Amino acid sequence: MSKLVGNALIGQSGGPTCVINESLVGVIEACTASDAVKNVYGAVHGIAGVLGEQLIDLGRESRETLERVALTPCAALRSVRKKPTREECERVLRVLQAHDVRYFFYIGGNDSAETAHILNEIAVSEGYEVRLFHVPKTIDNDLRVTDHCPGYGSAAKFVASAFMGDNQDNRSLPGIKVDVVMGRHAGWLTAASLLAREHEDDGPHLIYVPENTLTIEQFIGDVDRMYTKHGRCLIAVSEGVHGPGGELLIESAEKDSHGNVQLSGTGALGDFLAGEIKAKLGSKLRVRADTFGYLQRSFAGYRSDVDAREAREVGRTAVRVATSGERPHGSVVIRRVGTGSDYAAAFEVAELKDVARETRDLDPGFLKGHCDIDASFLDYVRPLVGEMPSAARLSDFAVAPKLG
Amino acid sequence: MSKLVGNALIGQSGGPTCVINESLVGVIEACTASDAVKNVYGAVHGIAGVLGEQLIDLGRESRETLERVALTPCAALRSVRKKPTREECERVLRVLQAHDVRYFFYIGGNDSAETAHILNEIAVSEGYEVRLFHVPKTIDNDLRVTDHCPGYGSAAKFVASAFMGDNQDNRSLPGIKVDVVMGRHAGWLTAASLLAREHEDDGPHLIYVPENTLTIEQFIGDVDRMYTKHGRCLIAVSEGVHGPGGELLIESAEKDSHGNVQLSGTGALGDFLAGEIKAKLGSKLRVRADTFGYLQRSFAGYRSDVDAREAREVGRTAVRVATSGERPHGSVVIRRVGTGSDYAAAFEVAELKDVARETRDLDPGFLKGHCDIDASFLDYVRPLVGEMPSAARLSDFAVAPKLG
Repeated sequence: MSKLVGNALIGQSGGPTCVINESLVGVIEACTASDAVKNVYGAVHGIAGVLGEQLIDLGRESRETLERVALTPCAALRSVRKKPTREECERVLRVLQAHDVRYFFYIGGNDSAETAHILNEIAVSEGYEVRLFHVPKTIDNDLRVTDHCPGYGSAAKFVASAFMGDNQDNRSLPGIKVDVVMGRHAGWLTAASLLAREHEDDGPHLIYVPENTLTIEQFIGDVDRMYTKHGRCLIAVSEGVHGPGGELLIESAEKDSHGNVQLSGTGALGDFLAGEIKAKLGSKLRVRADTFGYLQRSFAGYRSDVDAREAREVGRTAVRVATSGERPHGSVVIRRVGTGSDYAAAFEVAELKDVARETRDLDPGFLKGHCDIDASFLDYVRPLVGEMPSAARLSDFAVAPKLG
Repeated sequence: MSKLVGNALIGQSGGPTCVINESLVGVIEACTASDAVKNVYGAVHGIAGVLGEQLIDLGRESRETLERVALTPCAALRSVRKKPTREECERVLRVLQAHDVRYFFYIGGNDSAETAHILNEIAVSEGYEVRLFHVPKTIDNDLRVTDHCPGYGSAAKFVASAFMGDNQDNRSLPGIKVDVVMGRHAGWLTAASLLAREHEDDGPHLIYVPENTLTIEQFIGDVDRMYTKHGRCLIAVSEGVHGPGGELLIESAEKDSHGNVQLSGTGALGDFLAGEIKAKLGSKLRVRADTFGYLQRSFAGYRSDVDAREAREVGRTAVRVATSGERPHGSVVIRRVGTGSDYAAAFEVAELKDVARETRDLDPGFLKGHCDIDASFLDYVRPLVGEMPSAARLSDFAVAPKLG
């Protein structure tokens, strides 16, 4: 393929992650280093910023600012949840042409890959040469083809650390505790709660993911059984848990422009489940619910180092493949090389259409019954999370009673 | 005072903190080093474990286990929320006598100080010599006399980091976001959200603490004003916010044995406020609510180093003062020595009765109107939180539009 020289444009889309700006800086630094790229622009609020020609010049940012931005959670370019119409896609193309944009890097999830895919098809049909690349990010870890997604490792570390602490809390002051974890379609993030389980009686004692179905009757039966066994019960629930007919255990009316139901930013599911437990198992039980909410995707100062490095590298890879002409478009994917302490990642590029739109569930082998995750999942998730805090117990050397 | 030789007993009580086991280990190591202490026992589940003679021998724990326990959040001895009756206090005294306990260290909040105070009065009246010390902990920072409480610095760092991230989230995907922070009576923890505000337009844009009163009408008016000004609005709300008559904005029926209403472990307040915003300002607004919940008090792997050091030191101080005979009973307090980078802490002992039961509000000088915190609070809180993550922005160098 011939060398294509022009400007590069970067956008960020969808929900934030703690390392999404590592990818941004990875793209910027690789563009700056490439002689195929003249200027590096950013679109403010993703595709909405392109439509409104709200572009900024990223090439003028200092190295120091960029490195500080890389450490900052959530889209520094600001994000958007918008699925452009056909007409809007045509307008986007006109903006790209007007600014001589020959490289467009869209950092986002499966919806963003779809946007890049549609834009690419229109560009091809209109004969405008622009290399469109999707740079993956999502705490949900639900993109296809790739082994895992940048953003997931940090969110998984957050969730696992939260459960590790909450397990100590629940052991210290026993009761029934429901923790709701993000994950609309896939249970990858909820499954990471398994990392908190060290001793046989550690929580989470029950783990519910959307890959299984669940009825309230099953749920209450499980809680009753675990509470009887341990005298306490810590429960991890994906926000997307649903019944056999696909109906969510609780539904909220609000939908975004992709037709997704609002599940985050409300404590409703946790409170509903806590209420059901009290109603069915006894109103005097100590039942609490927390919904981890946005902290999972945006908490400052706590992330996985390997996730941060890989997020940087997917950005660099997109630019390398795009400017070399190796491929005219694509989505960066991570291939796992080696396992355990030999873990390493290889960075490759897949077809946009293979990543767009659809999501990827937890591998069936990672499920254990309807309310647990298989230990084999630990081998998958540990290298992505990196170093975890440790939780220790006292040995409880008994002192003989004197009074009886 | 004559030298008192016997066994020591330690208990942990109330809600956990991330550094409560630093205090436990501080007491254990100082007891082990003292020739006044023969054995160091722990009561499992605080005063409940004393009543049930459920004691463990802490002197047999290895140094390595203790140091790992110190890093682990939440009461390693397990906790309790129990206010003993007069009869139970007499039973406690009999257990202490039976095990020749001459030093009792109770790690907890104001309720625990009260328990220690009552036990001390009974011991004095019955002529049994036992030195009763309260070792402070609370993420609420609401104990009297002391400058601040072990556990607060770590929780404040968590809350500030959460708001720092959520401010980026809210800036990236604008909307109205309500974050509910722990703090039943006092706004110390909610006030720490101020640390997240770096730029003039950074959130939290509104900070509500229980020291002020609030009506729903005021709240809606404030949100409307800030949303109009910034195009987004991030709100910090103490779980204990209440109206002019003292009524909580939302009440839950469940009370614990100290007569406290359940405010944590439910998303109800946040969801209620989000619902009111939509009802009054428009149902199409993007309004979300998160309740930080137990993560504030038990998250593993993220804490303030200065808080951890001070928590260790309050434990050591209690043992030093108790075994030296300097005082027969008391509550360890921290006095601030120097400010800013000259910050240091001195460890002293106050009267149990001066710390017991009552709580301490935010200093009036730290309040700014009814919905903000004064910048002077930053000088107070910064040294307790220690190193914070930094959040950086792009410079937004504009690119001139070509299409218009």
